[in-house]
Amino acid sequence: MKAEILAVGTELLMGQIANTNAQYISGRLPEVGVGVYYHTVVGDNPSRLKDCLDLALKRSDIVIMTGGLGPTKDDLTKETVAEAFGRELVLHQESLDKIKEFFDKIQRTMTESNKKQAFLPEGSLIIENNNGTAPGCIIEDGSKVVVMLPGPPKEMKPMFDETVLAYFSKKASFKLVSKFLRIFGIGEAAMEERIIDLIDNQTNPTIAPYAKDGEVTLRVTARCQNEEEGDTLIKPVIEEIKNRLGEAVYSVDNKNMEEVAGELLIKNNISISFAESCTGGLLSARITEIPGISAVLAGSMVTYSNDIKANNLGVKEETLNTYGAVSSYTAEEMAVNIRKVMNTKLGLSITGIAGPDGGADDKPVGLVYIALADENGVECTRLNLWGNRNRIRNNTVLNALDIIRRYILKKY
Amino acid sequence: MKAEILAVGTELLMGQIANTNAQYISGRLPEVGVGVYYHTVVGDNPSRLKDCLDLALKRSDIVIMTGGLGPTKDDLTKETVAEAFGRELVLHQESLDKIKEFFDKIQRTMTESNKKQAFLPEGSLIIENNNGTAPGCIIEDGSKVVVMLPGPPKEMKPMFDETVLAYFSKKASFKLVSKFLRIFGIGEAAMEERIIDLIDNQTNPTIAPYAKDGEVTLRVTARCQNEEEGDTLIKPVIEEIKNRLGEAVYSVDNKNMEEVAGELLIKNNISISFAESCTGGLLSARITEIPGISAVLAGSMVTYSNDIKANNLGVKEETLNTYGAVSSYTAEEMAVNIRKVMNTKLGLSITGIAGPDGGADDKPVGLVYIALADENGVECTRLNLWGNRNRIRNNTVLNALDIIRRYILKKY
Repeated sequence: MKAEILAVGTELLMGQIANTNAQYISGRLPEVGVGVYYHTVVGDNPSRLKDCLDLALKRSDIVIMTGGLGPTKDDLTKETVAEAFGRELVLHQESLDKIKEFFDKIQRTMTESNKKQAFLPEGSLIIENNNGTAPGCIIEDGSKVVVMLPGPPKEMKPMFDETVLAYFSKKASFKLVSKFLRIFGIGEAAMEERIIDLIDNQTNPTIAPYAKDGEVTLRVTARCQNEEEGDTLIKPVIEEIKNRLGEAVYSVDNKNMEEVAGELLIKNNISISFAESCTGGLLSARITEIPGISAVLAGSMVTYSNDIKANNLGVKEETLNTYGAVSSYTAEEMAVNIRKVMNTKLGLSITGIAGPDGGADDKPVGLVYIALADENGVECTRLNLWGNRNRIRNNTVLNALDIIRRYILKKY
Repeated sequence: MKAEILAVGTELLMGQIANTNAQYISGRLPEVGVGVYYHTVVGDNPSRLKDCLDLALKRSDIVIMTGGLGPTKDDLTKETVAEAFGRELVLHQESLDKIKEFFDKIQRTMTESNKKQAFLPEGSLIIENNNGTAPGCIIEDGSKVVVMLPGPPKEMKPMFDETVLAYFSKKASFKLVSKFLRIFGIGEAAMEERIIDLIDNQTNPTIAPYAKDGEVTLRVTARCQNEEEGDTLIKPVIEEIKNRLGEAVYSVDNKNMEEVAGELLIKNNISISFAESCTGGLLSARITEIPGISAVLAGSMVTYSNDIKANNLGVKEETLNTYGAVSSYTAEEMAVNIRKVMNTKLGLSITGIAGPDGGADDKPVGLVYIALADENGVECTRLNLWGNRNRIRNNTVLNALDIIRRYILKKY
């Protein structure tokens, strides 16, 4: 089955946002045997939208539309699709009740225009939206299927995952089952060298690498009848990859580094605290995305200024004056002291130069120290990272989490 | 002039990457009077690519193609365009010399297939590529213009900025100048009600709203001869919108909330510290994205556990026991105490329930208290937020930054 993703919204044509919805949907539809052949973006313009829809219905079996379900007069997706299929828009009382409820919950008044969102093409399957006001829907007409989803990714994704994938899965003659191996601490080229024979000889499952944000993901995809068959095909391939790459493979379930490190801390009941300088709280923020982390994370300090490092965390003035805030000595004192101050099993510290300013010849932008203290002592890692402020901060956090992960794997 | 962006590459249809090239090009073309009406993505397939190009040439004056200029057999952009215009591909010696030079520089051997990249449609304008091997080109044919650029953004962007924009700028009979108003603290529908007459009566400039991540952006776009004329047309419209929406308009320059709040703190030299519970450091992480914030941000504490709130931040055990960690009393003590502990002008605290667990009837998930303390006292705001853990945390940070912004606007 050929699918096309038709995104509606002038904000896309003005470059205000990227079409990440098309990326997300394209990445998932193959799991249910649907291939994506085209993406189209069109503005909030009735006649151009109609032409694009007509074309999509001509060249594709399935059209997934995103956007244009909002409460304003600009939002024309349902109107255009209903017209194309000669259907009326009819009030869906349940959806209206949900919208009312939604506004009650956030203590705002529902406006008259929000009611428009509860009108849906007659005979369509309704897709509930638990994160916003616009319901989605699916229309089947002859051999064609049109799916309408709201534009905001936070609303679209759960609706797609929970309802749309299940809908196509029922119709599929085969499945694609994928596992994602997450790899950190080895470059894409070096990794490829170690497994190039596996990639070259792939048939089913297939193996595809891609690099992003300082780490590498390997997708292993099996074409199969069901989940179990897929797992049986994939398992030996994953084992072989792990043999080749060792501890650099940090997840075989597409978990991110904060989940992996966080779950290791929770599972082994290891309390921890952080002292962050250049990352400004980003490590704490990232690990507290994990529900339940409060069982082991007592707290942390963002010691942005030298005064706070000295007065509140007890780093010696002498250390700061002699070696500077960005030094292994300062990092080690920060880690040892935060562990004591917060009364935790482990203490981890970060100090570095994230840029764009503050670099020097002997201490360039991208120089970062991460120290980890336990009851026996402290160990410091020095990193030379590249890229802009954002990349350096994010990569520092990944490295810090990886240091925690490897420490626990070694000691527990 | 109507433009269409036609991206070529199966990796886009597989969801491995988002079409950020289309976003970038769309954001910049209006500066030279070119409006973008469609984005299309098609895979590395000759007949579908040809169909998409034919359609683009029919409905648009300008077609900007990205991707498909690589050295492999898959890469068919130039071949398809040359055929559509009945032109030959001819060797461009300068480009071949540059490609050789490039391989010398990175100390690799040029392969035979790289030579293919130096063959370009006869009579085209060549676009130099200083960051990769594939040159781009521009073909003019009658009233139509086709621009071909390589897919990797770090090659495409400089080529677009340096050559393509200059090319269209010379031809432009008018420009589009846009301003982006960022609005927080009022929903999209409610906002539209207050300015619906402005939107309805728009001619030049035009006004378009869109909602994202708990805030609303209004785009005001003028059609004009130059930047100054654009500003003159836009200014009264922005003033009128600001009259209607008041302080909810937090930026007229498309700055985000952390930039606006951070710059107000820096400009007025107001030192600040944070005590974060449910946001786990996210507020600190967000505001330290702003270079130079170290001038006013001393540091912050993530007081995730009650022990840390009591022992390290000095919140009274009695307060925690009587009212709980998520209460205005705890929030206020946290704000007052962090201000003292960190010795800053302002102290801001956050405590709440981000979920998914931890909610109760009287204290549901999404209940958040934010308190701001200064030398005269402390004020607490209670929020009832909705959505998942991620949304609640992000929205809490937006609200905290907005509280800082409004405080400074009022007092300074």
